[in-house]
Amino acid sequence: MKQPISKETVDDILSRMDIADVSLATIRQNVAVTNELERVSGEKFVHLEIGVPGLRPSSIGIEAQKAALDNNVAAIYPNIAGERPIKEAASRFIKAFIDADVPAECIIPTVGSMQGCYNLFLEIKQMNPDKPGVLFIDPGFPAQKSQAKVLGVPSVSFDVYHYRAEKLGPKLEEYLSKGNIGAIIYSNPNNPSWVCLTDDELRTIGEMCNKYDVIALEDFAYLCMDFRSDLSKPFQPPYQVSVSRYTDNYIMMISASKIFSYAGERLGLVCFSPKMYHRDYPRLRELYGMGRMGDNYVLTYLYAASSGTSHSAQYAMAAMLNAAVDDKLDFVDDVKEYGRRAAITKEIFERHGFNIVYDRDNEMPIADGFYYTVGYKGLSNKDLITNLLRCGVSAITLNTAGSDQSGIRACVSALSTPDLFDMLDENLALFETLANE
Amino acid sequence: MKQPISKETVDDILSRMDIADVSLATIRQNVAVTNELERVSGEKFVHLEIGVPGLRPSSIGIEAQKAALDNNVAAIYPNIAGERPIKEAASRFIKAFIDADVPAECIIPTVGSMQGCYNLFLEIKQMNPDKPGVLFIDPGFPAQKSQAKVLGVPSVSFDVYHYRAEKLGPKLEEYLSKGNIGAIIYSNPNNPSWVCLTDDELRTIGEMCNKYDVIALEDFAYLCMDFRSDLSKPFQPPYQVSVSRYTDNYIMMISASKIFSYAGERLGLVCFSPKMYHRDYPRLRELYGMGRMGDNYVLTYLYAASSGTSHSAQYAMAAMLNAAVDDKLDFVDDVKEYGRRAAITKEIFERHGFNIVYDRDNEMPIADGFYYTVGYKGLSNKDLITNLLRCGVSAITLNTAGSDQSGIRACVSALSTPDLFDMLDENLALFETLANE
Repeated sequence: MKQPISKETVDDILSRMDIADVSLATIRQNVAVTNELERVSGEKFVHLEIGVPGLRPSSIGIEAQKAALDNNVAAIYPNIAGERPIKEAASRFIKAFIDADVPAECIIPTVGSMQGCYNLFLEIKQMNPDKPGVLFIDPGFPAQKSQAKVLGVPSVSFDVYHYRAEKLGPKLEEYLSKGNIGAIIYSNPNNPSWVCLTDDELRTIGEMCNKYDVIALEDFAYLCMDFRSDLSKPFQPPYQVSVSRYTDNYIMMISASKIFSYAGERLGLVCFSPKMYHRDYPRLRELYGMGRMGDNYVLTYLYAASSGTSHSAQYAMAAMLNAAVDDKLDFVDDVKEYGRRAAITKEIFERHGFNIVYDRDNEMPIADGFYYTVGYKGLSNKDLITNLLRCGVSAITLNTAGSDQSGIRACVSALSTPDLFDMLDENLALFETLANE
Repeated sequence: MKQPISKETVDDILSRMDIADVSLATIRQNVAVTNELERVSGEKFVHLEIGVPGLRPSSIGIEAQKAALDNNVAAIYPNIAGERPIKEAASRFIKAFIDADVPAECIIPTVGSMQGCYNLFLEIKQMNPDKPGVLFIDPGFPAQKSQAKVLGVPSVSFDVYHYRAEKLGPKLEEYLSKGNIGAIIYSNPNNPSWVCLTDDELRTIGEMCNKYDVIALEDFAYLCMDFRSDLSKPFQPPYQVSVSRYTDNYIMMISASKIFSYAGERLGLVCFSPKMYHRDYPRLRELYGMGRMGDNYVLTYLYAASSGTSHSAQYAMAAMLNAAVDDKLDFVDDVKEYGRRAAITKEIFERHGFNIVYDRDNEMPIADGFYYTVGYKGLSNKDLITNLLRCGVSAITLNTAGSDQSGIRACVSALSTPDLFDMLDENLALFETLANE
């Protein structure tokens, strides 16, 4: 890429695609624009927009799934509450890596955490008519906001950037004290900012959940990927920090997509605290003849949504969970590659005048992982993304993830070969020239 | 089983399980009651309640799925619109066995037809605010009514028993003329009655869909299983009859669960007519920035619900669809076993004084297939099911499927060994004695 693509070319493509403001484009639109720019310019782009795993999964899962298929599970409806082996393996895994006690009966496999979260939103809305709302601690995963919208779940959110540490409690209280919020959702580590809420901050969230009788929905899509401490040893501290230490009002979501690079088979786990699983809601009893949250999650919501999830893939995930617990599969080491790529490319960005936007977890510099965020000298989201596109770099802007900051999210998952680092370096040099014109 | 179980024992179990009226029990409650009765009495039951496939699937699907796993598809997110091979195979399959033209782009794999139908209901409700309702041609699959309830989709229904042939049109018109119905849903062959709507009746439905701008949702869970004519030859008449011959306002659902005995992997296909796939709805554009029904089905509804369905299982179903089209897999012959079991056990029921409730498709006696319905000399649903349970036979009552008739649904899928026919004979003899006391 010797020359930036002209502004006219970019504007022309955006206009043809009916995109009025490129900084508001969805990931999908972004991919379409990038494909078209690659075609028109004849230049390959550096793709930082897509969050797909991109590593090869352990053969342990694949071999277990093939064995299950040979064992005729494809013929037989899966138990909607989940097959025994995956429920038991997940219970051990949660003890080994989060140090929380969640019995097998409270763990339900779903068609990815997407299905898990979707049906939690719907149930929370229906079970508690006075408190149907969800509070998003932003920035966050845009797909979860789409879910709330499709389901008509009222939602509110705030950007955690200005509300870390001792400022978090009062900010949460501002929303929860209104009494119409049934759940708080956040991911840890966070997509898109890779912010990791600290143990102290999780205590604050737990205390607020207790005080206002609200459920913490803890999305562990990137479980144990805060590589600043070694979370890879089963049954040994340090553990993945979790709100489950501070409240019984929690539900965790654990997906196989990123931690085991098993996104294709759509497998996630919804892990209810025993209190939440067994808690009785009169409104659910009125509607469906059963009162307990867990029973309704399985027999009302998941039954209607898909009647269970791939029978054979449950055996794949069960095998990987057990292998991790038995120290035969170092899933944390397997994904450390993402941290390596982040360290290299952050340095490239910084060398060309960019800064990390979400740069600290209170006193600690942020970890290197699947995502990070960068901005450039006060450039607006729109100018930043337009200039990056002109220089062959694609990404999504932070405002699409509910952030108030200017910047982009960079995902390192597609940076699978070293030549892409050189390409990024070259393209950002071009960007710097363009920005200083 | 020498003696019926006492009425007190049955009543005691029902009361412990909080079931006030056994004739209103769900399948799941029914299974629980039966398990408890088996435990208490020490007698094995004849299970006619459960509709699970129970045949061994073709190795073509299993081998294709294993090959896909070896090819690393587990690592890669599936295309939410479906992987190319299954979309193309399904398009060929629909031409070969239904003689309808549905392009690959209009065919979307889902997590079983359950997910397919659920998201159709939700989209139909949202896209057409004046016509959010669904009309069920009953008797029907109770799970689809649960879906409407969970989603808050208004629904109406009528029992087709009294409205076959020339009576069907006026009955449909009675509902559709009110203007608040967006879709009609029915299965063909029908669960639970095995009624097969005739080509003439489907023409009537098609004409009504055209007249009132309503969508026909055609559930082909039991595609080509009307064994009265040979529907097994690809690209040769007779074909599976379908409303697609008479209207462009159709969406078909084809599930791998029963036709390929592949229920475990949760794979179905939603097949839009080209007209419906591309049709623009202003309300969808307002809500989601895209107007077309098909685009929203994929990018709004399925994206939120689960972001696609098992990547490897799509290759299994693709292989079976292609093998069927290429005359290398006779899926119709594979499931004829159900017809054989139905013929044998219907004779046993009739010999003990039972009658087939839904006994004719107009002039033709009903086909032998996966389900049939039986009643006994005017006995009410409650007395019938109570006495059958006392004599070691479990089933669900017709009223739970929206039928106005007294009787039970018998499913032959669990009758996998000849000794079960003898057991049924013995237990129904006991029933006859009990009924004539």
